[in-house]
Amino acid sequence: MPATQRFDSIWLGADVATLRQGQYGMIKDGAVAVAKGRIAWVGPRADLPASPGAARHDFGGGVITPGFIDCHTHLVFGGNRSLEFEQRLQGVSYADIAAAGGGILSTVNATRGAGEEELLATAEARLSMLMAEGVTCIEIKSGYGLTLDDEIKMLRVARRIGQKYPIQVRTTFLAAHALPPEYRGRADEYIDVVCERWIPEVAALGLADAVDGFCEHLAFSPAQIARVFAAARRAGLPVKLHAEQLSSLGGSALAARWQALSADHLEYATEDDARAMASSGTVAVLLPGACYMLRETQLPPVALFRRHGVPMALASDINPGTSPACSLRLMINMGCTLFRLTPEEALAGVTLNAARALGLGDTLGSLETGKLADFVHWPVKHPAELAYWLGGQMPVTVVYRGERRR
Amino acid sequence: MPATQRFDSIWLGADVATLRQGQYGMIKDGAVAVAKGRIAWVGPRADLPASPGAARHDFGGGVITPGFIDCHTHLVFGGNRSLEFEQRLQGVSYADIAAAGGGILSTVNATRGAGEEELLATAEARLSMLMAEGVTCIEIKSGYGLTLDDEIKMLRVARRIGQKYPIQVRTTFLAAHALPPEYRGRADEYIDVVCERWIPEVAALGLADAVDGFCEHLAFSPAQIARVFAAARRAGLPVKLHAEQLSSLGGSALAARWQALSADHLEYATEDDARAMASSGTVAVLLPGACYMLRETQLPPVALFRRHGVPMALASDINPGTSPACSLRLMINMGCTLFRLTPEEALAGVTLNAARALGLGDTLGSLETGKLADFVHWPVKHPAELAYWLGGQMPVTVVYRGERRR
Ligand SMILES: [Zn+2]
Ligand SMILES: [Zn+2]
Repeated sequence: MPATQRFDSIWLGADVATLRQGQYGMIKDGAVAVAKGRIAWVGPRADLPASPGAARHDFGGGVITPGFIDCHTHLVFGGNRSLEFEQRLQGVSYADIAAAGGGILSTVNATRGAGEEELLATAEARLSMLMAEGVTCIEIKSGYGLTLDDEIKMLRVARRIGQKYPIQVRTTFLAAHALPPEYRGRADEYIDVVCERWIPEVAALGLADAVDGFCEHLAFSPAQIARVFAAARRAGLPVKLHAEQLSSLGGSALAARWQALSADHLEYATEDDARAMASSGTVAVLLPGACYMLRETQLPPVALFRRHGVPMALASDINPGTSPACSLRLMINMGCTLFRLTPEEALAGVTLNAARALGLGDTLGSLETGKLADFVHWPVKHPAELAYWLGGQMPVTVVYRGERRR
Repeated sequence: MPATQRFDSIWLGADVATLRQGQYGMIKDGAVAVAKGRIAWVGPRADLPASPGAARHDFGGGVITPGFIDCHTHLVFGGNRSLEFEQRLQGVSYADIAAAGGGILSTVNATRGAGEEELLATAEARLSMLMAEGVTCIEIKSGYGLTLDDEIKMLRVARRIGQKYPIQVRTTFLAAHALPPEYRGRADEYIDVVCERWIPEVAALGLADAVDGFCEHLAFSPAQIARVFAAARRAGLPVKLHAEQLSSLGGSALAARWQALSADHLEYATEDDARAMASSGTVAVLLPGACYMLRETQLPPVALFRRHGVPMALASDINPGTSPACSLRLMINMGCTLFRLTPEEALAGVTLNAARALGLGDTLGSLETGKLADFVHWPVKHPAELAYWLGGQMPVTVVYRGERRR
């Protein structure tokens, strides 16, 4: 006979995909009980302890999953690049677009020119689309300001989003995203300033939860990134890295040596990279939206990550240049269709492994007693449907910290 | 000085993409005036005739486009194939899936086993996602019943959707979709029955607005399709064709000889096909969702269609096997990203050219005086953004026959 427990609310009438250990962990006809914003109990409805006074919510079917976590985004930026997208399809060359001020620098200029309120308003429009599909935690990077003030402005907007909306925000300082035009030809000097002045200041302001960089021929070298990582460590911040997107520079192995939370993109990662990431517990964050938009044919080495036990996450990478993606569920489909993840791997990629990629694996990402009560109810019969249906916003119920989000 | 006119409502405060002649046809700071469910006037707000008593709706920004038209769907079907999708990603072979009763026959069985109410309910869930993104007209095919009664059941559900919801439905009879298992090895006999009995009966019941077929090695030959087309003509129904999806059989040229409204898929269409389609005014309906889900590398010959002046439409092809796509806006992005349409061509593909593919070019598809007042307000600054943003459901206002749809 079940014991009596003190729950605030009980959510039932659905199958529960717990994602415990990154597997479906299905509980047929399950129940999730919440107390003080945390999961107090999860299991088959038939075993639910008595809890007089708890509010009961019966979904009458469907599937409950953990809240979705978008662990790699550039949500905050000025302007957008839709006209550049159009020009390319009209046959204008990259060179001509760049000569006319296009490319990432157009986003840097638009971001520098935008005030905090404008950045907040445009980010909110994108955020609301992600939230409507069950995202309960989001990482937001800086990296389009590229002056200390403009980077701080971006991070402040990210923090404000976390205060204003029922969503958990993790901020990442990404000054080493691109070389600002003022530093053309002086990349090492830029990295000096970032390491010696910017990282300590952003850390002191409490505006960053992690530090990130872009290790690529067109961005920064492994040696420069290593200096950024050292500065992050001095400031007490964990690191992440955009690595092996366009070529194999060993950035992901470098990231692993610095116990990075994640290495992201990874199309050109090697078996050595996978081994290094496995041993450091660094999550492979795969970004199918960028792959799709760029029509990239080099795919991340999913089989290697599987073989070596590297946890794989999926994220929107929402950014104005290569992935204007406003749906994390679509990334699940793309992770399966383009990268050949299984639906179960893809779902783990936006829940438990995404939590790990943010250093939040202890509190988020699966439905287990003691974790925060963030979950989503989907009108489907099986979680594989979340990968299968291509586009379209399903009507969901989102519970954030134990409360129904409206 | 503007004249006075009698309008029921006026919609303004946005730029208007009229799609006249399949081009953006932008009117900056435009206005659309409606009388009796039709467009009574469209032009720059500054030129708007006085209309005392008309309800005024000011959008305060954004872009108005014609209502979206999804001109090729298999919206009504039983079950879904998410578990088959999952099995394939787990490494199960097509042969093993087919041996276990998977593939199109599983959908035929599920559709035969479902009652009209069940088919309606599951179709409604998908329909509501399409409608939420601005679809105001949808084509719905039969083709999973493959008995006269089950085909009629599917078409009845499609008709009921048109009666129940503020959306225009065009039904297409697609008995020549696949060979029913009862007729294995007797395809010509099946086509006999379809031509001699089913088409006349469905036409007499008024359940079909057009007749379609699937011309492919794994479906029906050009000679069989020609008999279906002849039967359709005897019944007074226009024709369409699934053609050149997997190989080049000359189906699209055949369709053109029968003045088909559209030929659809067309990955393997040739220049001769394009010439024939241009001369008959047959619309090329491109289906990027299926291409994407199948990871097809053979792309439809967009350059040939452009050169020969074949109108191009885009559709979701929503179906449980190859395109479980619930977003027409995503198909715009895929039409651009995968097929290299320009955003303007892609937008014409879900408006004016989609209307033509349904024989509705005179009343739908562009914002011109005299056409039906179906339009959508989008929170964007330029229509290219409808192609650019990848996924995510934008908050739209949909006007159907002059009334705001809720
Ligand atoms: Zn990124
Ligand atoms: Zn089709």
